[in-house]
Amino acid sequence: MSKTPRYSYLGPEGTFTWEALRLVHEAKGADWVSVSHVGEALADVVSERSDFAMIAMENSVEGGVSAAQDALAEHPGLRIVGEYQVPVRFTLVVRPGTATEDITTIAAHPVAYAQCRKFVEAQLPGHIHSPASSNVQAAKDLIDADGIQAALAPPGVAERYGLDVIANNVGDNPEAETRFVLVRLGGHVPERTGADKTSLIAELPDDGPGRLLEMLEQFATRGVNMSLLESRPIGDAMGRYRFVIDLDGHIHDERVADALMGLRRFSPNVIFLGSYPRANGHRPEVPERYTDEAFVDAQAWLKAVAEGLPDLP
Amino acid sequence: MSKTPRYSYLGPEGTFTWEALRLVHEAKGADWVSVSHVGEALADVVSERSDFAMIAMENSVEGGVSAAQDALAEHPGLRIVGEYQVPVRFTLVVRPGTATEDITTIAAHPVAYAQCRKFVEAQLPGHIHSPASSNVQAAKDLIDADGIQAALAPPGVAERYGLDVIANNVGDNPEAETRFVLVRLGGHVPERTGADKTSLIAELPDDGPGRLLEMLEQFATRGVNMSLLESRPIGDAMGRYRFVIDLDGHIHDERVADALMGLRRFSPNVIFLGSYPRANGHRPEVPERYTDEAFVDAQAWLKAVAEGLPDLP
Amino acid sequence: MSKTPRYSYLGPEGTFTWEALRLVHEAKGADWVSVSHVGEALADVVSERSDFAMIAMENSVEGGVSAAQDALAEHPGLRIVGEYQVPVRFTLVVRPGTATEDITTIAAHPVAYAQCRKFVEAQLPGHIHSPASSNVQAAKDLIDADGIQAALAPPGVAERYGLDVIANNVGDNPEAETRFVLVRLGGHVPERTGADKTSLIAELPDDGPGRLLEMLEQFATRGVNMSLLESRPIGDAMGRYRFVIDLDGHIHDERVADALMGLRRFSPNVIFLGSYPRANGHRPEVPERYTDEAFVDAQAWLKAVAEGLPDLP
Amino acid sequence: MSKTPRYSYLGPEGTFTWEALRLVHEAKGADWVSVSHVGEALADVVSERSDFAMIAMENSVEGGVSAAQDALAEHPGLRIVGEYQVPVRFTLVVRPGTATEDITTIAAHPVAYAQCRKFVEAQLPGHIHSPASSNVQAAKDLIDADGIQAALAPPGVAERYGLDVIANNVGDNPEAETRFVLVRLGGHVPERTGADKTSLIAELPDDGPGRLLEMLEQFATRGVNMSLLESRPIGDAMGRYRFVIDLDGHIHDERVADALMGLRRFSPNVIFLGSYPRANGHRPEVPERYTDEAFVDAQAWLKAVAEGLPDLP
Repeated sequence: MSKTPRYSYLGPEGTFTWEALRLVHEAKGADWVSVSHVGEALADVVSERSDFAMIAMENSVEGGVSAAQDALAEHPGLRIVGEYQVPVRFTLVVRPGTATEDITTIAAHPVAYAQCRKFVEAQLPGHIHSPASSNVQAAKDLIDADGIQAALAPPGVAERYGLDVIANNVGDNPEAETRFVLVRLGGHVPERTGADKTSLIAELPDDGPGRLLEMLEQFATRGVNMSLLESRPIGDAMGRYRFVIDLDGHIHDERVADALMGLRRFSPNVIFLGSYPRANGHRPEVPERYTDEAFVDAQAWLKAVAEGLPDLP
Repeated sequence: MSKTPRYSYLGPEGTFTWEALRLVHEAKGADWVSVSHVGEALADVVSERSDFAMIAMENSVEGGVSAAQDALAEHPGLRIVGEYQVPVRFTLVVRPGTATEDITTIAAHPVAYAQCRKFVEAQLPGHIHSPASSNVQAAKDLIDADGIQAALAPPGVAERYGLDVIANNVGDNPEAETRFVLVRLGGHVPERTGADKTSLIAELPDDGPGRLLEMLEQFATRGVNMSLLESRPIGDAMGRYRFVIDLDGHIHDERVADALMGLRRFSPNVIFLGSYPRANGHRPEVPERYTDEAFVDAQAWLKAVAEGLPDLP
Repeated sequence: MSKTPRYSYLGPEGTFTWEALRLVHEAKGADWVSVSHVGEALADVVSERSDFAMIAMENSVEGGVSAAQDALAEHPGLRIVGEYQVPVRFTLVVRPGTATEDITTIAAHPVAYAQCRKFVEAQLPGHIHSPASSNVQAAKDLIDADGIQAALAPPGVAERYGLDVIANNVGDNPEAETRFVLVRLGGHVPERTGADKTSLIAELPDDGPGRLLEMLEQFATRGVNMSLLESRPIGDAMGRYRFVIDLDGHIHDERVADALMGLRRFSPNVIFLGSYPRANGHRPEVPERYTDEAFVDAQAWLKAVAEGLPDLP
Repeated sequence: MSKTPRYSYLGPEGTFTWEALRLVHEAKGADWVSVSHVGEALADVVSERSDFAMIAMENSVEGGVSAAQDALAEHPGLRIVGEYQVPVRFTLVVRPGTATEDITTIAAHPVAYAQCRKFVEAQLPGHIHSPASSNVQAAKDLIDADGIQAALAPPGVAERYGLDVIANNVGDNPEAETRFVLVRLGGHVPERTGADKTSLIAELPDDGPGRLLEMLEQFATRGVNMSLLESRPIGDAMGRYRFVIDLDGHIHDERVADALMGLRRFSPNVIFLGSYPRANGHRPEVPERYTDEAFVDAQAWLKAVAEGLPDLP
């Protein structure tokens, strides 16, 4: 009898990360472990206290993206097995009975506060910002804390904690989304679906001019498109970088496999983070010469000519 | 009689940004304006309330790097005129008379807390983290707040606010540095020194495979080295990026000027952020064929042959 | 009163080169000087005995293409000012009264012979080939020579020399064409027409891997297409090459001028052979970002930002 | 009992091709078949009348290089199995008793004549050139022909045919060499020696800008150096080219095999001409990341990560 899987996530209930975890079909009925920062969620997986961690990877209002990237770089056994996208909306919440004109202090996670600055500066001039450690914590604290009348919180949090919503959609960018990934320790790579993404981290061999270009040519010559490229300081010296890269395609696609081998030869340190279905289901158009068939044909052709057989047509 | 220049910075006194501003010779005796976040410092410059803003650009423990990059992208008139590097060290400070074993709650900016996590988890197991809005605020709050016994703070802060240092150098990475830039609205580009950096932001024309490669070839074919490449979501749709780029060299270097023109033709939106002396004084070695002389020779040669004169030797 | 211009060409009357010269409007009524090989035609121009030389540059049945390329490399003052294309057709000619079955020996220039081999081997098995120094000379020799009954000759030659045509279109490739260029010593570059070609010769700085690629990137980053690339041994040592290159466009096109300057900086030896109207009148489609307007805009933008003015839109 | 192998070569005895064939150890004691042009030698191999053909491939004074390249393109079953280099020297030969001042007509193959032009124009002003079909034929014909007093011939020919040498080394370039290759129909690829060359012919998918660059990147991203690149018109339309390419390395080198597969996917028509020992014995230096070990390591790494195993170090 298999044990119930455990999922660590930046909690508590109601965070955007929690919303992302609700998108995972297999997580229904599993154990959900709320932790207080991304590093803790990954540490749970590394130490096998949890089976999975859900972490923000891009454009996050809950911070930790750089921390997540750095943590993945330092624990090569970690693997991404899924990607999830959550719209980022904020509400201004108060205790029942509080009026807008009563608000002098707003609790908010610093990143959430930054994302709602235009609204709060226009609507609540002269207010004070009280930093909170999470978007939900900001709202929960309202119940007990002295001198705080309002909080910025994700939708749904007001209802959960018995608060009132004064304003919906108070974020400066109404289209904001955060991209999350589900992380596991090792294990099989998820099946290829045709709408996949491959993530990796790679260092340059040295900082000579054109080195990054050479690295990117490993992808271009195999027709592999990049959807993300981030330089992250390695941390041992200013000016040394590793690159966090997302590719269109799956390691079981021949063109991606070939590019990964090219990268492995080029880079002194390349970490495969995983191949997994894309959140948006987008299927890349692959020109004929980069299809699996083209690779299989080329292998057959090479084998024939290397053995002295005549060229194939 | 010229008025005293004003410098906005993330304060209060004692922050790493304040340390960076102390490195600016011209800022001595000027008006220093402490603000509470990077966006406010830049807004001061855009609105001409201040003449300069000092902001963190890389590897910051005071947050705001992405915000700074995005703000620079949105206010094309802003120009970087100087670069400064500050070592990032933390001390654990307490009110006089407090012993290590008395500490149950630590005030700290969330980013500083993350950078000292190994130390505090090892030395102060079971403590509570109380988030603060700045590294200095964390220490100042100790004087009055209930239930907080310690703070993580930059060196020098203890002395300034009458606190005791329990431990020095408690950051997880003893070599950490933050890179700051001094920003102004328009005006002349600083003189070329031979040890310069050029910063810019550019968008790709579309997201076809190889587009980023094409953009980077604009630099490589002119022998221009990149020292920073960051993709930043443009924000209008998931998957659309702009790139923050640092180049070795000055816009008055022919090879950099030529690469910038190539980039301007390639990119639908390129923002020149400035050319300025590098913090580390490093002078790039420029191969002969990329020197100003090589460009001047090529222009003379082209002029001669285009007018029907014989080739130069 | 200006003197009548002189044109040297591989003669005598009736050769393909003579046909090419007939396409030159300005050559009508000028002095036409028949010479016996390409090197002599170019030497006439270099020594100013002639004003122009018409020479074959590609796919020639009159030989001399390599010789022409090498000669252009050794006399940098020579300039191409026009391009002409001539269909290459052969006829089998005999003295009046000779029957096919009488033919035992065929006079032919070795290259013409090679191009008609399938026909003559099928139709005249067992014949002997008597090499001639030109396609027309082969036919003229019929008048006097002993033991030769037939010749391979261009169309029109039979009529000129009182011979009979036994078979038309006896070449193995019925679509064959030869490309000729008109060469002058120095002087102004022909006007830009929008359907131009630019020819040049360049050496690589050394034979390191990727050097040729680097050279070609000088064209690619400026959107300049190549229509010809030939490696030619430099002759001082096996394995050292120069490259004969044809580009789409004119030196007065900004993108071509920029690429030429890039090439001048890259290559230890680059020879501009000329910009001139294309024989086929094909006008290249130039993407917007490589138009003259894009270059002028980029120059204005660079000037503005380098002087500290705000970015242009 | 195996039959004696047959070698076709451009004869007769004494030609440079014959000199090249003397360098083939295995050809000693075999049947040597003298033919009158390169196409005939290759046709002998294609029709299995001969086992091998020796043909000039570069910088030839016996013509036929383009013909050889085109013939190889049209008979994909042909394979190059060896490479040989022969110094190209010319002597001016006469019948015994003839003095320099008696010479009015010189027999010479047109290409040989072109290569000795400086000498004959300076030493024998006013002479007539009588074209010959081969360098040796020119000398042999002297014995019987009327009105011819001298010939240009390879060294050794005078002795063989009872002629006198009037001047040695009369070629304009005293360092000239011709490169020959030995060709066979199919069969096993010669063993890898570490000093090998790989020849191939490839077409571009279309004539868009940058296509050639893309093709060459297939080699550059695998660290494969080119030693020859020739564009040859395909012949079906002006402006369509195929490329004759020589690479450093052997098809059994992993980096070459990988590049060939990349090329096969890229090009609509790629012909493998063979891998064989280089004439000059030069061994390319292969950077560590392009060695066989690097490829084997990358394959093992890919297999491990694709199966969900942790990253290798």
